[in-house]
Amino acid sequence: MQLAILLYDRFTTLDAIGPYDTLSRLPGAEAVFVGERTGPYRSDLGSLGLVADATLAEVTAPDILVVPGGPGQLAHMTDGPLQEWIRAVDAHTTWTTSVCTGSLILGAAGLLKGRRATSHWLALDQLPGLGAEPTGERVVFDGKYVTAAGVSAGIDMGLTLAGRIAGDTAAQTIQLGIEYDPRPPYDAGSPDKAPAEVVAALRGLSRFVLTGEE
Amino acid sequence: MQLAILLYDRFTTLDAIGPYDTLSRLPGAEAVFVGERTGPYRSDLGSLGLVADATLAEVTAPDILVVPGGPGQLAHMTDGPLQEWIRAVDAHTTWTTSVCTGSLILGAAGLLKGRRATSHWLALDQLPGLGAEPTGERVVFDGKYVTAAGVSAGIDMGLTLAGRIAGDTAAQTIQLGIEYDPRPPYDAGSPDKAPAEVVAALRGLSRFVLTGEE
Repeated sequence: MQLAILLYDRFTTLDAIGPYDTLSRLPGAEAVFVGERTGPYRSDLGSLGLVADATLAEVTAPDILVVPGGPGQLAHMTDGPLQEWIRAVDAHTTWTTSVCTGSLILGAAGLLKGRRATSHWLALDQLPGLGAEPTGERVVFDGKYVTAAGVSAGIDMGLTLAGRIAGDTAAQTIQLGIEYDPRPPYDAGSPDKAPAEVVAALRGLSRFVLTGEE
Repeated sequence: MQLAILLYDRFTTLDAIGPYDTLSRLPGAEAVFVGERTGPYRSDLGSLGLVADATLAEVTAPDILVVPGGPGQLAHMTDGPLQEWIRAVDAHTTWTTSVCTGSLILGAAGLLKGRRATSHWLALDQLPGLGAEPTGERVVFDGKYVTAAGVSAGIDMGLTLAGRIAGDTAAQTIQLGIEYDPRPPYDAGSPDKAPAEVVAALRGLSRFVLTGEE
């Protein structure tokens, strides 16, 4: 079972690592990080480099596709090599997935038309323009398309999908292996729960980061 | 504020990324991945390469040190370049931290003597031999030493430490930015909660992985 995780510059690291450190622990799973070129891709913060071991041309029929988000997603919202590759491999996948604004790339590739989907909470309002119906759920299944909310939601997506693929015991074994018994020190992980000034501050920052508009 | 994240071969990726994708989002933070050599280090699963941009000699006085765990920790439990470097930079840190079995490396370096600490649940029984007092808590502060439980606990550690460093609002902003509103699909993230057969299966696997004993 091949798990292909797409890399591009300015991806958000945890978007990619949540699904990686859950799904690649499934028996028989082989993960591959893939990009337009091989070699390191830099994260949104610039201070991290994650290596793509395969080019797009070398990964033609993954069983699972993971598209992470990050401000770098903006550069891949129009037709180009990444979108062409995504559409081509989607014809072969059992599951096509995204985390955070990765769903905007899937949507731009035309894969979410008429489907329920999610994204980072600050990007949900961009989904209708791509033909998708936004939901506020953390992990959304619509057929073989699985989208997760922002960044850390990829862990919940990975475990949920692991259960669908290999059963509850396999998924629980991964959960206990990564000791995923979360205890956030604050209850501020969604806009419904965070203090209003925190939500407002992030809304103020988001327009440029998510759309490129000044 | 320099955040140094130590890399070595066969580290567990999420151990490093939880603290990275929280603490490096603090205003003024500059993260650097550091190793005995620069270039990619492979994860415990082999399928991921994360780049160290600096050698040990190039990072002499980080404000925060993060030591991740992973089966590769076994190779660094005796005196050597990593342990010497950890002791040297610990003389300058404001916070010395670990995730998962990274605490065994800190302990082997002599930094946890007489201190309360935690580790991956399967490795807690190794702490007393290193002079530390194990606790079942998810994030443990003892002076400037902060240890987190297994793998995913590094996210909780990063947010908790972010709050201590920069205040609740800064930490909540990071939490909302990474949409950390966890919804695990199972309640199996600790040995007290997981099905007995899942706990037993992981205990059976752990002896070799954690200690090298056959």
